[in-house]
Amino acid sequence: MSKKEYIRKQIARTNKKDYENYVVSRIVHLLDNLDVKFVTQQYVQKENGYYMADLYFPQLNYFVEIDESHHLKQEKADQIRDADFQNVVGIRPRRIDVCNATIEDINNQCDKTVEEIETIIDNKRTKNEFVPWDPSKEFNPDTWIKKGKITTKDKVAFRRIVDGCKALGLDYKGFQRAGAKHPFEQNTLIWFPKLYQNGVWENFYDEEKGVIQEKNIESKEKRIKHIEYHLNDPLKRRIVFARVRDPLGFILYRFRGVFELDEDTSNYKDGLCWRRTSNEAKTYNYRKIELPSLI
Amino acid sequence: MSKKEYIRKQIARTNKKDYENYVVSRIVHLLDNLDVKFVTQQYVQKENGYYMADLYFPQLNYFVEIDESHHLKQEKADQIRDADFQNVVGIRPRRIDVCNATIEDINNQCDKTVEEIETIIDNKRTKNEFVPWDPSKEFNPDTWIKKGKITTKDKVAFRRIVDGCKALGLDYKGFQRAGAKHPFEQNTLIWFPKLYQNGVWENFYDEEKGVIQEKNIESKEKRIKHIEYHLNDPLKRRIVFARVRDPLGFILYRFRGVFELDEDTSNYKDGLCWRRTSNEAKTYNYRKIELPSLI
Repeated sequence: MSKKEYIRKQIARTNKKDYENYVVSRIVHLLDNLDVKFVTQQYVQKENGYYMADLYFPQLNYFVEIDESHHLKQEKADQIRDADFQNVVGIRPRRIDVCNATIEDINNQCDKTVEEIETIIDNKRTKNEFVPWDPSKEFNPDTWIKKGKITTKDKVAFRRIVDGCKALGLDYKGFQRAGAKHPFEQNTLIWFPKLYQNGVWENFYDEEKGVIQEKNIESKEKRIKHIEYHLNDPLKRRIVFARVRDPLGFILYRFRGVFELDEDTSNYKDGLCWRRTSNEAKTYNYRKIELPSLI
Repeated sequence: MSKKEYIRKQIARTNKKDYENYVVSRIVHLLDNLDVKFVTQQYVQKENGYYMADLYFPQLNYFVEIDESHHLKQEKADQIRDADFQNVVGIRPRRIDVCNATIEDINNQCDKTVEEIETIIDNKRTKNEFVPWDPSKEFNPDTWIKKGKITTKDKVAFRRIVDGCKALGLDYKGFQRAGAKHPFEQNTLIWFPKLYQNGVWENFYDEEKGVIQEKNIESKEKRIKHIEYHLNDPLKRRIVFARVRDPLGFILYRFRGVFELDEDTSNYKDGLCWRRTSNEAKTYNYRKIELPSLI
């Protein structure tokens, strides 16, 4: 998707709530920087639950809340369980009050927000940490192979499973299964799970604690068999790309970190427990694999 | 309506068409001038028919068309016959191409538009012709009484019939009839007609030619009686405020000029023909009228 198309789609989503479109478009137009990506109506995880942020800047991990932020009720949170939540625990949102403000006040708050964003960008540039938004690069495995690693901080995601595999050194055209054995790292699976209830799987992910629960709910026998299989299997390390839906509705495989099986916590009732041990993984130059090691 | 509320409503209307919201909001935010009123989706009359302008600045008589302008088909034009059309005959729109443009091109075109608007404002300021937008003044009869006159060029309109009467020296609380005898000018009616077919009246207005056709269509007898009455009546001069609906759906009485009965052109078939003889009318200090001269 071009920046043109992306920006149009993002802006177009903001028009239903009073003043949201006005505030979002003012900030975007006054910032006037096509190197900065923005997301409207981004689901975020804060200290005490899931929320919808009206405007989010992924490169800066900065978000804007227009008036009160909207805490998602449990039902709503369940509905959007496949959404590409962003972890903003510990980050204070920039609040913009529109209800009790004159138009001059609203403009003023937007303008201050823009100044603040510009300062953050300048600081990042100084520290050589600012990566300009480039749609042709952000989901391209080559970008990360060149970097030598993927990190959760860099908000790495891929559009397709094959791209995630490629970044880790595995080039298999048309590969679509949810897991592939890592070609270079021992006892490691590259995993592309749905981290929510789907089909016979009752999976669950806690971003803050860095814990994935994985459980088969087809039958008691299958559940136990699945657990025992993995407790005895040497592949106890997983590089995880969670299958999510981005705010425009497209599928993404979002890098969530490296996880290891916690054998003590895993049990027959709750299933397997995978615990995050690292927020980054090495990338590798890929080579054509004729017969990939599937599981 | 406050500027805040007005601006929100105007911006909110532009979100259905691709890129319209992006372009309109960019121009408005970069212009960043609360003294300048703007109207989105303004119906305009051009050389060859009625159109919808995507963005219109009434103080500057300047309008923006995003891609192709939308010529209104006859059926559509009939539906919106009570709309507050603006006459833009002879004015070239600023066109913004979005379909064949990159996002950088679109931004560039918007920015040039903003520069052009700023130049127009500066020129008007130099000539002392720029009146800052003030919602509390624009529909207030006192504004025009102070000026000594109303003109079509100043785009004078009132929210209520009483306000139109007041501006011409007639203060009658709660007056709602469509015509009042002018308190100071001889043989003159202050008229607030619907200039389109309504009830038993088949009225018609041609802004470019400055002609109003007025015809009763209840029956042949009534039509002839109405025509003969006026041909014999001394009130052959009318100060006209057409009842229209503004782009946000509110009623306005728009000053259209001073008209005089054209006895030669009026006939039993087409009805009365009123011809514009002036684009301005004097205003007067009002005084309480106990028994106004109604017709």
